[in-house]
Order: sequence, then C-alpha cells, then structure tokens
Amino acid sequence: MSFEVIKKHKTFGGETVFASHQSKATKTEMKFSYFLPKQKVDSAIIWLSGLTCTEENFITKAGAQFHLKDSNTMIICPDTSPRGLDLPNEHESYDFGSGAGFYLNATTEDYKENYNMYDYIVNDLVSLLKDSFNVNKISISGHSMGGHGALVIGLRNPEVFSKISAFSPIVNPSQCAWGQKAFTGYLGDNKEDWKNYDACELIQSGKLHPAKILIDQGLNDEFYPNQLLSENLEKVCKDKDQELELRYQDGFDHSYYFISSFIKDHIEFHLD
Amino acid sequence: MSFEVIKKHKTFGGETVFASHQSKATKTEMKFSYFLPKQKVDSAIIWLSGLTCTEENFITKAGAQFHLKDSNTMIICPDTSPRGLDLPNEHESYDFGSGAGFYLNATTEDYKENYNMYDYIVNDLVSLLKDSFNVNKISISGHSMGGHGALVIGLRNPEVFSKISAFSPIVNPSQCAWGQKAFTGYLGDNKEDWKNYDACELIQSGKLHPAKILIDQGLNDEFYPNQLLSENLEKVCKDKDQELELRYQDGFDHSYYFISSFIKDHIEFHLD
Repeated sequence: MSFEVIKKHKTFGGETVFASHQSKATKTEMKFSYFLPKQKVDSAIIWLSGLTCTEENFITKAGAQFHLKDSNTMIICPDTSPRGLDLPNEHESYDFGSGAGFYLNATTEDYKENYNMYDYIVNDLVSLLKDSFNVNKISISGHSMGGHGALVIGLRNPEVFSKISAFSPIVNPSQCAWGQKAFTGYLGDNKEDWKNYDACELIQSGKLHPAKILIDQGLNDEFYPNQLLSENLEKVCKDKDQELELRYQDGFDHSYYFISSFIKDHIEFHLD
Repeated sequence: MSFEVIKKHKTFGGETVFASHQSKATKTEMKFSYFLPKQKVDSAIIWLSGLTCTEENFITKAGAQFHLKDSNTMIICPDTSPRGLDLPNEHESYDFGSGAGFYLNATTEDYKENYNMYDYIVNDLVSLLKDSFNVNKISISGHSMGGHGALVIGLRNPEVFSKISAFSPIVNPSQCAWGQKAFTGYLGDNKEDWKNYDACELIQSGKLHPAKILIDQGLNDEFYPNQLLSENLEKVCKDKDQELELRYQDGFDHSYYFISSFIKDHIEFHLD
C-alpha cells in the first residue's frame, strides 16, 4: 500500500509530513500527517483527533514532536472522516458526517459504503505502518471523539495495539448526546449494535486490555461530565478489573492547550 | 492601561490568555495573547508574528509554553496590524494592510491615523507589560515580518529591549519586494524615510545593540534569499561590529515547524 507525500517540513532532526493514500475501507482518498524522528523507527503511535478536526490539528498544536525527536517512535494522525463526498446530511452539523466519523463502520444505507473509519484505522492505517514504515509495535491515543476511537479500537484489538491512552474521551457514547446522534445516524436504532463501539459496554462485556489505560480529563472541560461521562469508565474498569489511570486535572479545559500540557506524559507512557 | 480577558486556557501550571485593549497608537482595539507561567514573572519576551498572522499563530503552534513553564518569564504576542477598519486597499493583499502592519508608523494620508504598529509596540505594549504585569526586563523576538519588527524596534530602543532574536527575518526591507511595497504604501516614495525601519540601514548608521543578536534562517525557506536577504545583515554587522549569531539551518523552511524546532534555543537566549 503506497502513499503520496503532499508536503514535508523538517522538524527538529526529523520530518513532519502531510500525505494521502487510497483507502479500501472508505473507498476515498484519506489524508494523514506524521512525524518521523531522525532515528530509524520501530514503533508508532496512532493519534485520533476529535470532532471537526483534520489530520492537521494535532501535528500543529500538540507539541508532540519535541518529545518524540530523540526516540524510535513515529506518530501518525489520520483525518477524522472520509472527504469529498456529498451524502445526505453529511455536511450539515459539526458532530455528524464530515469531520465526525466516530471511528466505526456504518451500517445505515447512506453511510455504509464510505463511513468505515474503524476498518480504515485497524486495516488500512495499520498496514501502511507495517508495510511502508516497518513498524513492529503500534499503540493508540486520541482526544474526545478520538479518545473514544482509541479506547474502542484498542480494546477490540489488544493484539494489535500495545497501549491505549486518551485525553477527554467520550467513554460511553450510547449514553450521551454526541454518541446517540452519531450512532443513530451511522448504525441505526438497534442499541445492541451500538455496544461494539462503546468503551464502557466493551469492558462490561469482558473486552479488556492487558496494559494499563492512561486517561487525562480536565475538570474545567466544557463537555465534562455530560458528553464524556468519565466516571462511568472508572466504575466499569473497577468492576471488571481493567487497569486504568484516570487523572482528573484541575482547571484544564477541552482544548489543545490541555493536550500540550500532558502530551509528554502520554508519549512516555506509550514509549515505555 | 487596563485590558480585557477574552479567553483563558490553563496550560502546564500557567495560563494561555487571549485579551484586548484600546491602543493610543492605532486608535483601535488591539488583540494579543500571552502565556504566564505559574511563578511570579519579572521579565517578558515580546513576540512579533509575520504576514497574515494574528495573535493566535505563535501561541498555538510554536510550543513555547513548555520551555517557559518553569521560568519567571512571560511571552506576549500582539496582532500584526490594526483591525476593524476599511482603509483604501487595506484588505486586498496578504502583504499590505490588515495582517501586514510592518511594525512602523505610517505617514501616508490613508494610513497615518491608525497604522502605527511601531508606537503600539514601543509604547502601548511596553506600558502594559510594566503596569499590568510588573515586568522589569523586556526582550523581543519575531518571525519574518515580525523578525524585521524585532530587529528595528530592538535596535532603535536598546535601553528598553535587553535582547533581540529572530527567525527568518526580513533584514533589509528597502531592498526586497515585500518591504518596497509596504514602505511605499505606508511611508511614501522618499527612501530616506525608509531607513528608520530597515535593520541593515540602522546598523549601517551606527544604531547598534549592546547584546549579541541571535537569528535562525532555514536554508530550505521559500523566501530565502530573495525577500529575506540574510547575508546583507551579516555583512553590515561585521562592518559595524554588531555582534550577531546567524545560524543557517539546513533543510528548514519558513513554517512554524521550523520555529518550534529552535524556539527552545531562543527562549534560553532571552532568559540568559
């Protein structure tokens, strides 16, 4: 699986690169960014961004390159949905359709052909990392909708993703407005189908990850607790013996200023 | 001189803040951002951004907060021009008018009332730092057009600005297309008037700074050498005994990925 470099910026000794490739899962061109340190890499962190983001937000704002520059680990940041389509209701709202793929495989008539971000990450992006970058260890992290994606994808594929971390994740989408809107639109009304894409439900059903999960949640986050429901994850992890370090961070909001403040800890967690 | 906080984001132990105040120099509201570490500050770095930027670019993309978080130094980032006006030709091009104030005091009829970014920095912003933040040491840095601003303002006011550094500065605006267009529009055709705002001309006329000047210039910069003319500064500094460390950085371009790669060095230079 090849890819095309769009632009490339030397960053520290390495490179910040914007690229695209054809996705089998979404049947569209998908864009992504990555940072490659100057050393040969043997591992990768996949970063999943939140609502409205593209492949650009994290790599521009998080300050991650500084903490990866002396490591053997790259970070890769895919876009948050297919692009270039014009499906019914796809571009009407910030929390559904374009920029809001929710890292699932859609089953509703309008979306099932293209909105397969779960398969895109698990198959296309993982293949790219293995085939084009010779990476032999992959872990996953993300923010908000991307934190949900990291948890769901990591819990369902612990043999592929060695570690999971998240910032301000939507941990129980079946129980919040963002998740209910997205799941109804992509998966339909049968709530049994939603459980495959809900971190709390997955852990409740016994899908555990062998490594500790690291989460940071700001206490001044404008979406906490209503959309994020962090305490629900705490409870189910305790009930099911999933190791979890959930750090409530006083005064921090939902922004990239929060992410930049703790990205060093997350990178060290993934490198460990 | 008071100011109004627009929004505030906890960042590391400190705060990234967006604010505005009324400027005597521009007779408009001026926006700025700043990062205040958690410790009491006694010094400040003024960061001047380049063409098309606002108060947001640097504070979002440069990763400076990480390197200032344990210091007693804040960084403040003003907008690059007055806003909210509708002067002739003000919004027609990216390199003149809004987003392109060039850190000078305009004398042409249309612009002289408001486009006084030189006075805005030297008077209004310095007063704000002294009065509202009790800062007793101020230094100055910037990128591209902002690197030009840092050099000109620092060279003309060495008693106010203890250090000058710059990334990819326009060092000799009288001799490049960007500078000629801006100076003609803001200052008119008399090239003698241009010399007050041209770092090479200032040094040539004996305006030296007692401290070493630090500059980083990427060798893959799309505007080097044509618009930036770095070698002209090297030559005049040598001729006039102005201490200069001009580092040509192989492979780096004009972007914030370049700035983020060397901002640590610049901050350490200013803190020293």
